[in-house]
Amino acid sequence: MTSEAGTTLWGGRFASAPDELMRQFCDSLPFDLRLADVDVRGSIAYAGALQSAGVIDAAECAALVEGLESVGEMLAAGNVTHAPGDEDVHTVVERLLTEQIGPLAGKLHTGRSRNDQVATDLRLYVLDETASLGPALAALQEAMIDKAQGHLSIVMPGYTHLRTAQPILFSHWMLSQVWKLLRDGDRLIEAAARTTVCPLGSGALAGTPYPIDRGALADSLGFACASENSLDAVEDRDFVAELLMWAALLQTHLSGLAETLILWSGESYGFVTLSESYTTGSSLMPQKRNPDALELIRGKAGRIIGHATGFLCTLKGLTSGYNKDLQEDKQPLFDAIDALKLELPLLSGLIRTMQVRAAHMAVARNDAMLTTDLADYLVSKGVPFREAHAVVGATVRAAERLGVPLKHLAVNDFQKVHPAFEKDLYAVFDPHRAVAARKAKGGTSLEAVQEQIAAAKIRMREQQEKLATLTAATAPIPIQEAIA
Amino acid sequence: MTSEAGTTLWGGRFASAPDELMRQFCDSLPFDLRLADVDVRGSIAYAGALQSAGVIDAAECAALVEGLESVGEMLAAGNVTHAPGDEDVHTVVERLLTEQIGPLAGKLHTGRSRNDQVATDLRLYVLDETASLGPALAALQEAMIDKAQGHLSIVMPGYTHLRTAQPILFSHWMLSQVWKLLRDGDRLIEAAARTTVCPLGSGALAGTPYPIDRGALADSLGFACASENSLDAVEDRDFVAELLMWAALLQTHLSGLAETLILWSGESYGFVTLSESYTTGSSLMPQKRNPDALELIRGKAGRIIGHATGFLCTLKGLTSGYNKDLQEDKQPLFDAIDALKLELPLLSGLIRTMQVRAAHMAVARNDAMLTTDLADYLVSKGVPFREAHAVVGATVRAAERLGVPLKHLAVNDFQKVHPAFEKDLYAVFDPHRAVAARKAKGGTSLEAVQEQIAAAKIRMREQQEKLATLTAATAPIPIQEAIA
Amino acid sequence: MTSEAGTTLWGGRFASAPDELMRQFCDSLPFDLRLADVDVRGSIAYAGALQSAGVIDAAECAALVEGLESVGEMLAAGNVTHAPGDEDVHTVVERLLTEQIGPLAGKLHTGRSRNDQVATDLRLYVLDETASLGPALAALQEAMIDKAQGHLSIVMPGYTHLRTAQPILFSHWMLSQVWKLLRDGDRLIEAAARTTVCPLGSGALAGTPYPIDRGALADSLGFACASENSLDAVEDRDFVAELLMWAALLQTHLSGLAETLILWSGESYGFVTLSESYTTGSSLMPQKRNPDALELIRGKAGRIIGHATGFLCTLKGLTSGYNKDLQEDKQPLFDAIDALKLELPLLSGLIRTMQVRAAHMAVARNDAMLTTDLADYLVSKGVPFREAHAVVGATVRAAERLGVPLKHLAVNDFQKVHPAFEKDLYAVFDPHRAVAARKAKGGTSLEAVQEQIAAAKIRMREQQEKLATLTAATAPIPIQEAIA
Amino acid sequence: MTSEAGTTLWGGRFASAPDELMRQFCDSLPFDLRLADVDVRGSIAYAGALQSAGVIDAAECAALVEGLESVGEMLAAGNVTHAPGDEDVHTVVERLLTEQIGPLAGKLHTGRSRNDQVATDLRLYVLDETASLGPALAALQEAMIDKAQGHLSIVMPGYTHLRTAQPILFSHWMLSQVWKLLRDGDRLIEAAARTTVCPLGSGALAGTPYPIDRGALADSLGFACASENSLDAVEDRDFVAELLMWAALLQTHLSGLAETLILWSGESYGFVTLSESYTTGSSLMPQKRNPDALELIRGKAGRIIGHATGFLCTLKGLTSGYNKDLQEDKQPLFDAIDALKLELPLLSGLIRTMQVRAAHMAVARNDAMLTTDLADYLVSKGVPFREAHAVVGATVRAAERLGVPLKHLAVNDFQKVHPAFEKDLYAVFDPHRAVAARKAKGGTSLEAVQEQIAAAKIRMREQQEKLATLTAATAPIPIQEAIA
Repeated sequence: MTSEAGTTLWGGRFASAPDELMRQFCDSLPFDLRLADVDVRGSIAYAGALQSAGVIDAAECAALVEGLESVGEMLAAGNVTHAPGDEDVHTVVERLLTEQIGPLAGKLHTGRSRNDQVATDLRLYVLDETASLGPALAALQEAMIDKAQGHLSIVMPGYTHLRTAQPILFSHWMLSQVWKLLRDGDRLIEAAARTTVCPLGSGALAGTPYPIDRGALADSLGFACASENSLDAVEDRDFVAELLMWAALLQTHLSGLAETLILWSGESYGFVTLSESYTTGSSLMPQKRNPDALELIRGKAGRIIGHATGFLCTLKGLTSGYNKDLQEDKQPLFDAIDALKLELPLLSGLIRTMQVRAAHMAVARNDAMLTTDLADYLVSKGVPFREAHAVVGATVRAAERLGVPLKHLAVNDFQKVHPAFEKDLYAVFDPHRAVAARKAKGGTSLEAVQEQIAAAKIRMREQQEKLATLTAATAPIPIQEAIA
Repeated sequence: MTSEAGTTLWGGRFASAPDELMRQFCDSLPFDLRLADVDVRGSIAYAGALQSAGVIDAAECAALVEGLESVGEMLAAGNVTHAPGDEDVHTVVERLLTEQIGPLAGKLHTGRSRNDQVATDLRLYVLDETASLGPALAALQEAMIDKAQGHLSIVMPGYTHLRTAQPILFSHWMLSQVWKLLRDGDRLIEAAARTTVCPLGSGALAGTPYPIDRGALADSLGFACASENSLDAVEDRDFVAELLMWAALLQTHLSGLAETLILWSGESYGFVTLSESYTTGSSLMPQKRNPDALELIRGKAGRIIGHATGFLCTLKGLTSGYNKDLQEDKQPLFDAIDALKLELPLLSGLIRTMQVRAAHMAVARNDAMLTTDLADYLVSKGVPFREAHAVVGATVRAAERLGVPLKHLAVNDFQKVHPAFEKDLYAVFDPHRAVAARKAKGGTSLEAVQEQIAAAKIRMREQQEKLATLTAATAPIPIQEAIA
Repeated sequence: MTSEAGTTLWGGRFASAPDELMRQFCDSLPFDLRLADVDVRGSIAYAGALQSAGVIDAAECAALVEGLESVGEMLAAGNVTHAPGDEDVHTVVERLLTEQIGPLAGKLHTGRSRNDQVATDLRLYVLDETASLGPALAALQEAMIDKAQGHLSIVMPGYTHLRTAQPILFSHWMLSQVWKLLRDGDRLIEAAARTTVCPLGSGALAGTPYPIDRGALADSLGFACASENSLDAVEDRDFVAELLMWAALLQTHLSGLAETLILWSGESYGFVTLSESYTTGSSLMPQKRNPDALELIRGKAGRIIGHATGFLCTLKGLTSGYNKDLQEDKQPLFDAIDALKLELPLLSGLIRTMQVRAAHMAVARNDAMLTTDLADYLVSKGVPFREAHAVVGATVRAAERLGVPLKHLAVNDFQKVHPAFEKDLYAVFDPHRAVAARKAKGGTSLEAVQEQIAAAKIRMREQQEKLATLTAATAPIPIQEAIA
Repeated sequence: MTSEAGTTLWGGRFASAPDELMRQFCDSLPFDLRLADVDVRGSIAYAGALQSAGVIDAAECAALVEGLESVGEMLAAGNVTHAPGDEDVHTVVERLLTEQIGPLAGKLHTGRSRNDQVATDLRLYVLDETASLGPALAALQEAMIDKAQGHLSIVMPGYTHLRTAQPILFSHWMLSQVWKLLRDGDRLIEAAARTTVCPLGSGALAGTPYPIDRGALADSLGFACASENSLDAVEDRDFVAELLMWAALLQTHLSGLAETLILWSGESYGFVTLSESYTTGSSLMPQKRNPDALELIRGKAGRIIGHATGFLCTLKGLTSGYNKDLQEDKQPLFDAIDALKLELPLLSGLIRTMQVRAAHMAVARNDAMLTTDLADYLVSKGVPFREAHAVVGATVRAAERLGVPLKHLAVNDFQKVHPAFEKDLYAVFDPHRAVAARKAKGGTSLEAVQEQIAAAKIRMREQQEKLATLTAATAPIPIQEAIA
């Protein structure tokens, strides 16, 4: 009965052992050991389901659960040595369990395949991580909202095309970043809702011939429901692709924020000062204070976009049924999650400790930013906007020709360009007035910004509540319940 | 007042015209003309908003609306000639409007920038397209469900790793594809919910100084709400990125389906026959009947993944405020949508007309696919599964050594490997029995499949209802309402 | 003999015509018509090869060539109407040829498949385009070298991490961009060398049964050699992938240049002024002068990276033999080439017309940029560099504490930090001295820069010569030769 | 003089230490320690250059070299413990060196920045890896050529569109895979030629103020030349992008080979049998023998395409000068190289041990594959090919209608379709004849295949020679030379 390839789980029908390179290439243990906790949780729940289905009796279930718990503790403590045949986290757990409780361990795999097992593990893992990514994202949103609230009225140049455009409040800009992250919050919830589906009990592809109550099994693991089709259950990696795409878009948002802060904290802008704690120096140039963290965050966007792309490409053209290609789901997923778990709190700290330099912002403002308001001034005198725009453009050119700032043009210089100009035109050259005028919803006036803050806080709170509901239930459950 | 660069909308402050190459490179008209309809709709609504805000009077509004309608008709009819200064769809519409109603046209741009205008147009466009993509997706789901329902009980080999694994129902496989598309349906709804946000009234970046009721404006265009932050409103292209990522994942699903059907309709499998209408021949080899459409669908996945990737990469590192880089949003978006508008109905037809060849499927089944059931048989005799698995593996090797199919081994040959085998073991070698045994939720048994069909239909219907609610409102509205 | 599906080239064995959607989805004519010229050239050469092989006689060959030439002229003139059955450029050419010369046209396809035909066409097309992309790239390199030469001695701040680092010459920076483009030049040559391989005569996959001299055929089309394996010949799209990857890396270079110039031409830096011809205005804000072209170039990098990615993804997992997925090679390729054909000359013009503002560069320099030289000063006094670095860092902090520029610290303030400082230390605070000191190869001193210019010119010239050799031969050849 | 942030290399001007998260996020030590060997080699060479330049004396140089050698041994032995301030491999080496030889270590960084140092290290690393990837690639090419040579005359169905097309030799197919890998060989050489450029002596960005002979320094490290522009030298990561793109295209080739072998080794084709050593079993289904390695290779293509894409995206839009984003170059590069170092020898073994099942290939052939030859038969009777194609198509339909194989149609049935058919037509239905007829260069006839083998061997040998020349010189050199 023993096989020459007998160190593996599946060697029964094999006459020879795998090639050594093959083993090294195919084994996932070097990176999937972090699934140990969820693998044990899944196995405990499965033991309960086998008992409920009458496949094992209560004593066997209790022994399995006890054994699994002790395996879980060994793995958590990190004192496990590698043995031949340890291909992946599942084989390690099964080997350790066998070492603990003997051949009874062999009953745990009844009706279960690594195909449904790993899909279950990975979903539990993603839900666990989502449960911590969500609050980390919210903490960053909160740091930003607090920053806005602490600097409500500072007027700075707003940019389009990296050219000064119109004056805005710094707080308005800060909030513009929050709304992006709130959309990321929505998407994380939606991804989690599609992740909390339990594949366990799908077997290798065709379902289980044992009378397992899959709804109860899903429930015992904290999943919202059981999967609907066994084939789809084992091959579906949409939840991985979605998390990667979610991370890629979030990273894109962070890269834009990083780029902006890199520029603004540089000598030419000087709008903000980063805390020393978030900058580093140069090994050659003693004066340097480099925004390394922000640069890495910007660069990470590339990497994570690459992970999302690469995984979609891995999925492309795969035929139905589990294919080993799917093992490529883990490393990009882990890397994307690990990166965000550092980046989100790091950015929260960076934002909170960053100094806003109102004086530098004031210096960077210029009259030209008020030309739209000057055109609006003409509109208020009855000039159609398109004509007003052309008129003001001509005054800009006139001022350039004379080499003076626009507001230093005499009133009759203005009138030469268009008769609708009057003395009151100079009131336009007040950036605070321009800011205050933009009162409509979403505008940069103080009231509109305060409304934004209130709205953002409500949305943030709602998101966190929804996310908590979706993910909390998957936390490890007391064993008694699992085997009840 | 006129400028040497006066053919453009913005030339007032310019002394010279743009370089010709520059124009050719920057102008978006060659591809954004398809936004003409939504641009006109947005402009009509904006005229109404300007009237409500007291910026223009009722007569002016009526004239603008009438002019815009006639421009819309001209553009729909396609009889518009190109003029210098036509950079994009917005400048074309404005020029035509000026030709129709004179300088009054110049009032329409009051407080509006191309930044909020194009963001509004593109969102309307995406919602319009979503309104047709949704039903096309549902039609494909329906074609698949109908196919499953029309071939409920055909047993075929199920595969993992492209090796026969266990017998399943063809209908079960067909449904496994439906669930993927139902997830795509969910994601489309969610993307649409984030798209139905109206940026109009955000100006270039800072908001509008005019007392525009942005909520009412959003409403008049059928959007669910107005955007919350003017800066974010003009620079947010998450809705484009999301639609591209949605399309990329959907295409990945379609590529897997295509790959499977290409294999199955080939000589070696022969499980299905594609209708001649969906195959093509060879210019050199007279006998050929090639599954070109399926191959292109498979290949398209690469292209659309590339579009999603490329657009995220375009977004990466952009600073706050509209940047021209965002113009790169349109072509990948249009291409992804156009492709799906052909692919989805094409696949519906291909699935509906495809013949299922039960006899070929029967031939491809083999006894080895029932070894899991043989192990389960041993489990039922009290052997732990892991041991049973090894035992059955040994019987497989024994049969191979003798060169006979497994079920042709004599009972005592089985017993030599393990004493638990008895004469009743041969009952295992019935694929229908194996299929029927997988009764748990999501399994391949007939009842489980019928439950799946019912569940899928409900979910499909719910999705279409939600999607209709989200998108229907953005359809063009009677002008009287817009100007009421 | 006629078939119900008889409008196609391949319909002989088909009972019914393709579905209309299918046709629309599969036909490549909307985008491959630009291959008409190379298709005709390839066909003329093939007619010659058929004659040499004795498959057709001289009169037939002459008639085919004459017919093809007239078809080529019709297509060039653009007066061809669409007919049913026109799937792609090949079917159009064959139809027109049949209309011109009757059934003899049917001999042209002897031993030829669209598989080897389209591979030949696409290679000829790429070589043609390479023949114009190469000089366009060289023209940009030349514009940059000229700019450097015209502004040899302007000292500006050099940056790392977007923080001022050390003074450099503007010309040194300009040249740093040239070397990237010279590497792109190398890669283009190498890609062309792998493109100039002729697949014609490979049939559909297995080679040709006719005694065609494939070497002579390759030669008659200007290819360097004939392909080595017929299967590989028809399925190899490495040359497309390579050109896309080449374009993606080149675009990445251009995106960095664009980003730098966008920043430098903005108000905060002010290092350069872009010519009005390469900027555009705003529809709302009259004062704006936006660097649209540079932004689009930056954004295009995303798009082209997406094309390269997408095409690799399309290729991934394709089995041997032509698959229709390969039709997805054309649109990304054409788009990437079209973009560069505009961008390269546009950038040449933009660089040539850009003003360099030495005064703004001077203002942006600061003493802190000379701290490395101050550390080197200490090294010259015997202090190990690592200690000198720490010492200078401490002086920077001391100056910051006192709120004075570093060079305003008194000599004894310096000496308090380290005794090696002497009065001559202040000579360090001269950026011209710092620049002049970096004389080693590749450094920023004037002599080193002048050597760079000489070296870059030589390399540029060598590249253009090699490229011309590789691509010139594929230009259309007189017909007499083809049929000799 | 000591700083509160004094554990770092650059802390002199900092008042506080970096945030702990920041450190964790920015430090590259967890992944760049594998550069220890090249870092030490680079440092030894740099010590020699400092001596030649008169910056240090011979005794100092000797002490530095001796210290570095001992550091190198410590690192190679792996017995180094982590200390605070160990950010990356460079700081570790410098710290250990200081521990060995005291403050003299501080002279090694004179004129050197981590910017030029890491660029040098990474290039040396890539050249070292190229020196082993090249032969591994050649070994795979050789395994394939040997396989072709060992199975020269086996006739199998050739496919297009995954449909049988024409008979070919198995050896011809095998060689079609070799030519792809030979192109990869070319590209690896070209990438190496652009990698063997030494940035050392470029300082942080501006070059070195010390009279270092950069040509000699490059030479002492085995580089072909020194870089031409100091700014470009420190920011150029083309060589990383190129290696990633090279790996991506190679992986694409391997993915196609893998897909083909997965299909062919499955039950439906059965063309090859994979050695048990390269397959694995199932934890649930005892009969399974899964081609896991091939599936992972196919899936890896996605991952590596993702790395190439992601890194290009990281590079996109970076301004001039080193930016920390570039630190993202290492992990994708290392991962791509590590993967290939397993995959290439694994595939060599898999190909060498794979059984070719000629009988299964014979069964899969069908008469329809000879219809092109039947059309060629008609051509030989004077029928234009296009007409012959349609005629043969009609005979195929006729045979289908009668339900018989084409060659079982009676001669007068053929003649009913076209009078040119005669009794000798049946000779066409011999696949060996069809194969033998394709004698032109690159065809599937035996002679053509033998010529291919000879040509492939020559090209393979030439590549390995070139590659050896390019990479051998960078191997570690005896210290005496370095300090001579």
